[in-house]
Amino acid sequence: MHSKRIKNLQKFIGASGLDKVLITDKDDIYYYTGYRILNNCPAFLIIDAISRPMLLVSPLDNEAETLTGVGVFLMQKTKDLLNALKNSKTIGYDEHHLTADLFLKLKKSNLKLKSAADIIKKPRSIKDEEEIKQIKHAIKITRKVFGNLEIYSKSEIEVAHEIETSFLESNATSAFSPIIASGPNSYFVHHVPANRKIKNNDLVIIDIGARFNHYCSDITRTFCLKPCQQEKKIYMDIIEIQGKIIDKIRDGVRFNEIQKFYEACLKRKKYKPFHGFGHGIGLSPHESIKGKLKKGMVITIEPGIYIKGFGGCRIEDMILIKKNKPEVLSKNIVN
Amino acid sequence: MHSKRIKNLQKFIGASGLDKVLITDKDDIYYYTGYRILNNCPAFLIIDAISRPMLLVSPLDNEAETLTGVGVFLMQKTKDLLNALKNSKTIGYDEHHLTADLFLKLKKSNLKLKSAADIIKKPRSIKDEEEIKQIKHAIKITRKVFGNLEIYSKSEIEVAHEIETSFLESNATSAFSPIIASGPNSYFVHHVPANRKIKNNDLVIIDIGARFNHYCSDITRTFCLKPCQQEKKIYMDIIEIQGKIIDKIRDGVRFNEIQKFYEACLKRKKYKPFHGFGHGIGLSPHESIKGKLKKGMVITIEPGIYIKGFGGCRIEDMILIKKNKPEVLSKNIVN
Repeated sequence: MHSKRIKNLQKFIGASGLDKVLITDKDDIYYYTGYRILNNCPAFLIIDAISRPMLLVSPLDNEAETLTGVGVFLMQKTKDLLNALKNSKTIGYDEHHLTADLFLKLKKSNLKLKSAADIIKKPRSIKDEEEIKQIKHAIKITRKVFGNLEIYSKSEIEVAHEIETSFLESNATSAFSPIIASGPNSYFVHHVPANRKIKNNDLVIIDIGARFNHYCSDITRTFCLKPCQQEKKIYMDIIEIQGKIIDKIRDGVRFNEIQKFYEACLKRKKYKPFHGFGHGIGLSPHESIKGKLKKGMVITIEPGIYIKGFGGCRIEDMILIKKNKPEVLSKNIVN
Repeated sequence: MHSKRIKNLQKFIGASGLDKVLITDKDDIYYYTGYRILNNCPAFLIIDAISRPMLLVSPLDNEAETLTGVGVFLMQKTKDLLNALKNSKTIGYDEHHLTADLFLKLKKSNLKLKSAADIIKKPRSIKDEEEIKQIKHAIKITRKVFGNLEIYSKSEIEVAHEIETSFLESNATSAFSPIIASGPNSYFVHHVPANRKIKNNDLVIIDIGARFNHYCSDITRTFCLKPCQQEKKIYMDIIEIQGKIIDKIRDGVRFNEIQKFYEACLKRKKYKPFHGFGHGIGLSPHESIKGKLKKGMVITIEPGIYIKGFGGCRIEDMILIKKNKPEVLSKNIVN
């Protein structure tokens, strides 16, 4: 599995004119090697167009020495990385996962660098069968958690903790900090759960995701037990907009085109866009997508309406992109 | 509280010759503003020596607009950041929390940049009373979890999930992925919990931490129900070395000096050093410490012995640095 992924990347490296790539995103390292580096620990995966990849890790990651398929080296200092890279021609690096500090150290060693996050992440954007299976399981767990959820008369923090506990009971962890935003807090897109008690007539945005066997789900539902007219209206508007977006999506459509369409839908109904219509998902809950949507990508569709002083509403589903109509993976989740 | 912290930083900015600093570490932004930015969301805090700080966030962080004490601006594009910085003289940036991508964009705008992580993080290294209270509570929760822990005949993953559930029951979350490393796996310093069942005669390293009200604990114990001679010996050696390190620590001693002493202790007993003797801790489970240890710093002391093909042993405690003898905050935790 990993050797297939590496070969896929090597094809892109060969076509790019790069000599090799320096991979620093921990999710990418896991994707290409199956080895999970903890945060805060330096690790570098170097892949060229033909040779065996080389993984440099700190002695804290001595378990990497059990890997086959990649050459593993325990490094003590940055100098070990510089030595591994010397005599390279152009090195592609991940501009979003390399610190300015390290970038300058590489520059100082007269290495020729070129940003290459798009190349490094290209194989990862299309999910293989095994990955889709894990993602589906992460969704299944989230479906169960939503199904058992009771939120009223509890505080946002209590609900968040109950959700995280339910994930653990299903052998998963929380893929990101749950967003539980009730009443006026639902206006705040990235609200951190607070002590506010949830009431019957609140709009309550619940934006959660499970991480199962490294793969993430990211699903949002908005609840309101006793909605007023306006609450009903924005809820129905969101459902309508989400449906329209999903109808537009298929292999070959540009991501930006869908974003423009989403913003136009909101504006037509006199709402202000606060965020993108969705994002890629897989090993990371947020994976960036550029250019065209392609068969085998998994993305979320999360239109949101936010009205200052009133509240907000957001629905987020996960879909698998196909040649024609996409498959909605997160079907049959409450609401 | 935040205005005191900002004033403290402004004093350092004034003395440094910098015009202003650009803060990009989410923990630093929380420290100076009380506002928590979720991962994956861009945010920039700009502080100069005299003016009101300026916080630039994405529209997803519209809740930041409720902040007082800082000017909050919703930004749409990198251009908004470049505009906010133009006409600055030298800008100090956090070289460990700025991506190469953004660094190059700032450079292209002819901004004069200077690495300044040390200045930005200097106030945070000394914990105030309120912070120590939160840290002590995070330790208290971890003590309780260790006290109730039953590990034998369970898999490493099961133990990890039970620990994370216990944290949630105490209104905390896991500060980092728990390390549960049993038997031969205990040789692997950053072992990710696996399906291996824990046996009576295993060395079992349990390295866990709670995050309570944003503050972290990080504590390690090594268990062995039926230790053999060698297991007993390395355990006693670790206890002895940890005691010696703690005896050396007081206000004014250099961090590097302690590291050298630790490595010498290990070598005298013919063990190989695999990692540092400890690290700072607070809003982040790992905070870097440079230069001298100072009164009010909280650090961990975590000597470890690892023998290939046999296993490992690590004990980690948290201490508060004082003028003379430090205070061990994680006393009375099992073992």
